[in-house]
Amino acid sequence: MQHQPSPSYSITLRAEIENKIGMFAGIATVIGKVGGDLGSVDIVQAEKGKIIRDITVNARDEKHEKEIVKAVRSIKGVRVLRVMDKTFTAHLGGKIEIHNKITVRDRNDLSKVYTPGVARVCMDIHADKEHAYKYTIKGNSVAVITDGTAVLGLGNIGPYAAMPVMEGKAMIFKEFADINAFPIALATTDTEEIIQTIKNIAPAFGGINLEDFAAPHCFEVESRLRQELDIPVIHDDQHGTAVVVLAALINVSRLLRKDIRNFKIVIAGAGAAGLANAWMLTVYGIKDIIVCDRSGPIYRGRRHGMNVYKKALASKTNPRMIKGSIADALEGADVFIGLSGPNVVAAEDLKKMSKNRMVFALANPEPEVSPEEALPLVRILATGRSDYPNQINNMLGFPGIFRGLLDVRATGVNEAVKFAAAKAIAHTIKDDELHEDYIIPSIFDRRVVSAVAHAVAEVAKKTGLAGH
Amino acid sequence: MQHQPSPSYSITLRAEIENKIGMFAGIATVIGKVGGDLGSVDIVQAEKGKIIRDITVNARDEKHEKEIVKAVRSIKGVRVLRVMDKTFTAHLGGKIEIHNKITVRDRNDLSKVYTPGVARVCMDIHADKEHAYKYTIKGNSVAVITDGTAVLGLGNIGPYAAMPVMEGKAMIFKEFADINAFPIALATTDTEEIIQTIKNIAPAFGGINLEDFAAPHCFEVESRLRQELDIPVIHDDQHGTAVVVLAALINVSRLLRKDIRNFKIVIAGAGAAGLANAWMLTVYGIKDIIVCDRSGPIYRGRRHGMNVYKKALASKTNPRMIKGSIADALEGADVFIGLSGPNVVAAEDLKKMSKNRMVFALANPEPEVSPEEALPLVRILATGRSDYPNQINNMLGFPGIFRGLLDVRATGVNEAVKFAAAKAIAHTIKDDELHEDYIIPSIFDRRVVSAVAHAVAEVAKKTGLAGH
Repeated sequence: MQHQPSPSYSITLRAEIENKIGMFAGIATVIGKVGGDLGSVDIVQAEKGKIIRDITVNARDEKHEKEIVKAVRSIKGVRVLRVMDKTFTAHLGGKIEIHNKITVRDRNDLSKVYTPGVARVCMDIHADKEHAYKYTIKGNSVAVITDGTAVLGLGNIGPYAAMPVMEGKAMIFKEFADINAFPIALATTDTEEIIQTIKNIAPAFGGINLEDFAAPHCFEVESRLRQELDIPVIHDDQHGTAVVVLAALINVSRLLRKDIRNFKIVIAGAGAAGLANAWMLTVYGIKDIIVCDRSGPIYRGRRHGMNVYKKALASKTNPRMIKGSIADALEGADVFIGLSGPNVVAAEDLKKMSKNRMVFALANPEPEVSPEEALPLVRILATGRSDYPNQINNMLGFPGIFRGLLDVRATGVNEAVKFAAAKAIAHTIKDDELHEDYIIPSIFDRRVVSAVAHAVAEVAKKTGLAGH
Repeated sequence: MQHQPSPSYSITLRAEIENKIGMFAGIATVIGKVGGDLGSVDIVQAEKGKIIRDITVNARDEKHEKEIVKAVRSIKGVRVLRVMDKTFTAHLGGKIEIHNKITVRDRNDLSKVYTPGVARVCMDIHADKEHAYKYTIKGNSVAVITDGTAVLGLGNIGPYAAMPVMEGKAMIFKEFADINAFPIALATTDTEEIIQTIKNIAPAFGGINLEDFAAPHCFEVESRLRQELDIPVIHDDQHGTAVVVLAALINVSRLLRKDIRNFKIVIAGAGAAGLANAWMLTVYGIKDIIVCDRSGPIYRGRRHGMNVYKKALASKTNPRMIKGSIADALEGADVFIGLSGPNVVAAEDLKKMSKNRMVFALANPEPEVSPEEALPLVRILATGRSDYPNQINNMLGFPGIFRGLLDVRATGVNEAVKFAAAKAIAHTIKDDELHEDYIIPSIFDRRVVSAVAHAVAEVAKKTGLAGH
């Protein structure tokens, strides 16, 4: 697939240019010829006979960036002084920082926020631990924790390389839900050590967002922490996506006026997202779900490529005991949900699905089936990408979910909370706005976070999760 | 000791007052009579016949706060609507928050700081771990970690109650050294678990500030982490105080023109601060140091109340093998350094010291000997308090030390770094400024942090600690 130039591959060339008429037009022409998308152009310095400009260009990828630089370098009268990559520049020095909420400029300030005044606040919390929510960051802070074993689609790249994602997630928490999220990258991949470490650092936080932990140890880590901690713990790769997928399905059922519980669903992928989606949809009441992994449909009694989690799921899904390949599973299915990797389904196979076939191909950046090929065949297409309609992105879920949980000092999380979040996301789109290309709101629709937060808080209170 | 009213016990009374001439003067008189220190007075609302004011008053302590409120309540024509404690108000919701360094307002922003752009930065760090210093928060972040076992003078109050101190420390890191410090409170007091937990969360940080860990497990925690981590680890209660005490001693030696190595020193306290001070001064070259604990002077071969740390120290200190009580140790001593608790020395005993006797009574808020009684007897008095000259406060040390270490991406810390910090603190006071009442700079003297940071960075480079 040929990508378009994008801001993810944006470079700024600092170039010294001979100051004569037509020079810049020549540069712009050259950039256009090699397929670069010209952005802002600033003057850095103008001297007698020459001018220094910062020229920003969007490219398709890193190789394309180099081609553009080479092309500009080859222009007579132009000297490229420096090439800055906008994406790397955005990450320089890290992307978040600590701010003090009040000033510490003199002894009066200091005596309140630090010794000796702080001792009174300490003793107040010592007398009633619940006051930590009132007088410390706990009430509005979430730890975003990874062990770096399944980062984006990049795999096990370790804690150091995972940090830019955790910081990015912290930024989203702040921007969309005004939550203070602290990124933590763990230098261990041992399940027991992960659990122990997270339990040990939990007191400062009002919630734990697990991120990019690989399956299957992510399941044990999350379920144990839920049992052993008194704050909500959510592995976002599991439940974040599941909530948004459910929201999309709710809207599809509204649009088609068909009971969601009668959807026949095929899920590709039995990792964190695939299994969590299957469970959530099962609990929601959908009866015909087939989960496929590399070995094809998972069914009760399958011997190869199983683990305890797949085994448990097999007993609750695939009621028609379909075996074989994904293509076999797709026979008569209404919805295909891809939570695996690129190109696991041929467009041709989609024709086996029911008439109103819906395809959620969520692998990023390369979906499970080519969107171009799928589009003419399906009633509804959703992807994880922003360059097609119906972007399924867990950013629609986690900021509002944690906002709502923190607002009631929740001691945990349950299915009802997740269902409430999915419904709130779905219903930010009105009946008469629903459309094949608009079954899920935009991640920049600010109403979503507050709707989700409100719904989550209400349900948390009703179901006994509220800590106060 | 009768304290003066202080901003640590500051209350704001919201009072509805009959709007007639002389009413406020009457209130001010009543507050003065009960010993309250009247601060700012704001009008909240003025209505026909009555006015609502916020009246801020500094009190001596919580009991005194209540007396003041009671006195104001008793005034005819005054109704106290609400009493707000300024210290508690300062801690509401926690004292620090996360800020995004760049905005995330649209897809272009998002594609740089999060997916898909972030993947390139991840892979860059994956290829070279050292780039974590460049593209993540690591290069300017310190974890401020406690297990809550020895918080201020309050003892083992646990992780929740310790958090206000950690947040306060994070504020100081930010305000004085522009370092992003993340507070972490550990839900374990097991030495091995503490070590493992801190190692596991270390990747995001460029340094570790251990805080308020009790002796003796603090020694094992720090020394093991120093061996096993590739970033500097400093238990501030040990070394922060020791650095500032050494700075004060350096200036005393300048003032008295006496070689510091010939000082006879008695230290009261064999906890984290006492033992670390004794070691640092020993390594610095001071030969006659006697450390006293509850059982009196520690000497080689003492049997009661010993541990491995005291035993190790005994072999290097107390060369004259003094036994008995603190009073016996003080015979002929030049410097008394109190790092223990209130009133462990009688003023009378100070008379046994040498002529130019110096007393650093650092227990807070109640020093080892009454400052009022000590003052007439000594040449130099220093305390940990701000209401006497010569405040020995580790705020003079840690911000600059970590600033310098982070600036060179230090892989650890050593004695040379601490000595350099002490000398830098000392020499912010010029020869002709030195005085019995000015042997240590003010914690608000902004030159200190940059002087310390510069000296630390230089020495870290020279001694092979610099990571780049």
